Amino acid sequence: MPAPTLSDIRAAYARIQPHIHRTPVLTSQALDALCGAHIYFKCESLQKTGAFKMRGATNAVLLLSAEQAERGVATHSSGNHGAALALAARRRGVRAWVVMPENAPPIKRDAVAGYGATIRECAPTLAAREAALEEVVAETGAEFIPPYDDGRIIAGQGTAALELMQEVGELDAVVAPLGGGGLLAGTAIAVTSLMEETAVVGAEPQGADDAYRSLKAGRIIPMEDPRTIADGLRSSLGQHTFPILQERVSAVVTVPESTIITAMRRLWERMKIVVEPSAAVALGALMEAPERFAGKRVGVILSGGNVDLDHLPWLE
Amino acid sequence: MPAPTLSDIRAAYARIQPHIHRTPVLTSQALDALCGAHIYFKCESLQKTGAFKMRGATNAVLLLSAEQAERGVATHSSGNHGAALALAARRRGVRAWVVMPENAPPIKRDAVAGYGATIRECAPTLAAREAALEEVVAETGAEFIPPYDDGRIIAGQGTAALELMQEVGELDAVVAPLGGGGLLAGTAIAVTSLMEETAVVGAEPQGADDAYRSLKAGRIIPMEDPRTIADGLRSSLGQHTFPILQERVSAVVTVPESTIITAMRRLWERMKIVVEPSAAVALGALMEAPERFAGKRVGVILSGGNVDLDHLPWLE
Repeated sequence: MPAPTLSDIRAAYARIQPHIHRTPVLTSQALDALCGAHIYFKCESLQKTGAFKMRGATNAVLLLSAEQAERGVATHSSGNHGAALALAARRRGVRAWVVMPENAPPIKRDAVAGYGATIRECAPTLAAREAALEEVVAETGAEFIPPYDDGRIIAGQGTAALELMQEVGELDAVVAPLGGGGLLAGTAIAVTSLMEETAVVGAEPQGADDAYRSLKAGRIIPMEDPRTIADGLRSSLGQHTFPILQERVSAVVTVPESTIITAMRRLWERMKIVVEPSAAVALGALMEAPERFAGKRVGVILSGGNVDLDHLPWLE
Repeated sequence: MPAPTLSDIRAAYARIQPHIHRTPVLTSQALDALCGAHIYFKCESLQKTGAFKMRGATNAVLLLSAEQAERGVATHSSGNHGAALALAARRRGVRAWVVMPENAPPIKRDAVAGYGATIRECAPTLAAREAALEEVVAETGAEFIPPYDDGRIIAGQGTAALELMQEVGELDAVVAPLGGGGLLAGTAIAVTSLMEETAVVGAEPQGADDAYRSLKAGRIIPMEDPRTIADGLRSSLGQHTFPILQERVSAVVTVPESTIITAMRRLWERMKIVVEPSAAVALGALMEAPERFAGKRVGVILSGGNVDLDHLPWLE
């Protein structure tokens, strides 16, 4: 399957627009001063289900044939993709199965169940997760909708950058969090197609820096033992996302845990928004590499806001 | 001084627009389902300085004559008005003095000082506060800008409702938090002038229900011993705000502390925004009086987002 193009992203946007929020772009003089740049925050934390994942999942669900829709969709996810797929499926009246590790936080299970998906529990290993998914697909004939390594998903995620550029115009750089690479790949296609000169930068936790290392090595180096609070960014790159990043991403900035937590707190405190650690990594990249962004117009995609309010990192 | 009119609010809007954020209006299916209504949240928590207070303070500062501006402005405030006046003054290059009780939380002091105002400390009593303010005014000739009981302030606060109506059109009701009455008075003038049939409802903590009692009694009953976490709503009504509320407000709903905290948590959790307890009181009113809003289109003004992130009420 060839990589999605700008026109795939535009088509995805037309398709999903009635089903998603057009999220606001916020600015903060305090954070501009902190980073020495002019920052435009695209708040996907304010997206339905609290994350940009709703964009890709909705695009994939709306692209199902009538026959596929009849059989339903399935995925494995301990996080935002599961909730997004559940809601996107419910909006089209399609059944959804989500394989979740038995130790997934209750708040994540409740979200998926609340959107009407059937949860299938599995042991908390990649092998158990894949086995459970295969089982569900074999039993139900459901279509597997991967969390990121899929053209339909990548095209959907790219629509956030499209909205951002529509709203603020020319940018010198766009920064997005980097885990499996779905958001960054979609962002990079949208941005570099429309603004050739704009740098697209990935923001990755230092404790899960497989993408940084993979891009350096020229081959996918899987993430084996991720150690980061940014639970949305622990995955490895995929066969679809990796080549897109190779072609279109200018740089990856890795961000230490302490900076992730500081960035998260600054976003809550100064911008009055609830963002999850994975989203804060993007601001963390500006704090870690200020020379790269000094005086520039920078778009930052705040990917999500799903946090356990009983356990805040600065209070632990 | 006669009460401000719709044209005062429109003039205030034209005046302050370049200096404020046009805050987003957010919606949430989860909170609609919780309350049984269609709710449009006007997020003044995302306003500059984290509160609607920036609107009134900016209006008052921009209305100063050149001569007044030369002398500066002064106020007493332990909260959002002080920070807003400090920033509004700085933007016009005007000096500002803010009288604050010596026990004011460091975060509030830092905000006021950070915007360049001079802080004058006083004992934490109303008498000490008024004496300190008189002293500052006598020494400096600064213009006193009251926190709410002032036509310039009321007109400025009304501009939030103006933006809300521009964005969402007809509403059956608009709910705003009720402390000293500046926000609610401005909101009521804007809303009832433009939409005669729309109910304007005040949301007041049960532990500081002086406005509820005052409107019932037909005279201002001062708040003597407010007991509420909603620190922005502990003040008594003023000579200017009271008659406007008498004329234009349909009802006051009083909200118990437990509902305020639940509402606050729901807003953080489901809408991914940081709001302070005083803002949550407005959603709390819908939770307390669902019959009043059932199936209706309701605008809710979320007044502010200034919270000490080290002390969250559900973790205390």
